[in-house]
Amino acid sequence: MPESTRRPPARRTGGRSARVRAAVLQATIDVVLDHGADGLSIAEVAQRAGVHETSIYRRWGTKSALALDAVLDRTRTDLPTPDTGTLRGDLLALLHDVAVFVRTPVGGLLLRMAVQEDLAEYEAARDQFWTARYAVGATVLDRAESRGELRPGVDRRLAFEALLGPLHTRVLLTREPLDDAFLEGTVDLLLAGLTA
Amino acid sequence: MPESTRRPPARRTGGRSARVRAAVLQATIDVVLDHGADGLSIAEVAQRAGVHETSIYRRWGTKSALALDAVLDRTRTDLPTPDTGTLRGDLLALLHDVAVFVRTPVGGLLLRMAVQEDLAEYEAARDQFWTARYAVGATVLDRAESRGELRPGVDRRLAFEALLGPLHTRVLLTREPLDDAFLEGTVDLLLAGLTA
Repeated sequence: MPESTRRPPARRTGGRSARVRAAVLQATIDVVLDHGADGLSIAEVAQRAGVHETSIYRRWGTKSALALDAVLDRTRTDLPTPDTGTLRGDLLALLHDVAVFVRTPVGGLLLRMAVQEDLAEYEAARDQFWTARYAVGATVLDRAESRGELRPGVDRRLAFEALLGPLHTRVLLTREPLDDAFLEGTVDLLLAGLTA
Repeated sequence: MPESTRRPPARRTGGRSARVRAAVLQATIDVVLDHGADGLSIAEVAQRAGVHETSIYRRWGTKSALALDAVLDRTRTDLPTPDTGTLRGDLLALLHDVAVFVRTPVGGLLLRMAVQEDLAEYEAARDQFWTARYAVGATVLDRAESRGELRPGVDRRLAFEALLGPLHTRVLLTREPLDDAFLEGTVDLLLAGLTA
């Protein structure tokens, strides 16, 4: 049955379109939390979001594009670009937000999906996810440079990897706590470096 | 049948004992590579190494202790403590060796085991593995401090996590290459820090 017969006709305003998008992305997160990434079914997302399957295919095209949009939408909310006025404050905020996020159901799921090796269909989505994340780091570092806080010539991507790498190591490998001593110690070491 | 009746009586010299140990540890690696950590069977290790099962139980006690010893033995060979004479040289050697190791069958297996969440029996082994690895990093940093290369007060564990974290992120999450530009860039950033 076409969507137009299921609901009363409505002007497609930004408001309704935004509400539909939010409902579909939330349903996508819920389905993946329930069944895993392998169990993502557009039929089930459509049913939970109360929209027609063809609407989802028309807007997102593929399951991996839908999953990527859902994850990026969530990370834009949960992992905002900080602007505290100092490089140290921004790096602490970035790292703290990730430490909280990886302990949420969505963050934990994202990590489990990411370490799987057999999800080739998500390769492009993974690259787009990290491109978006690195852009957040670059914004923070660009602002620090304009304030004169940054050593010249710092590679933005390497710096962002240096900020987040120790946290990923603790979550995925050593399972050590992400406490304040760790978060602050990691940021301060990254700022000051090792050399005398 | 007791081991003494299977083989001609031999003085238990360091030489024979060391050969038995090496054979058992190599067989352990081979069995885990073939069947995964869940499929580690002491009976199969004994059969492949040509020793009696009870000898393995007497010496190692449990499967996880055996697996730990096999892995630590291999990392002592593949991931030695560098001593190049400079902090930069040592950090580059450490990082380069890990970059090579994680691409070997044993290194890849170790990573896959480490990111699994359901191997509670390996928890103590994991802690002992990282304690041994952190000791290598501390040796390198202590030598650098005695040469006057290190800023005072550097936390040894945070510094080692800062060295290896970006590599773990690339291998497990972003899947970006571990090329020389990455290895050198990571070390130089860790040495110099971010601040102007």
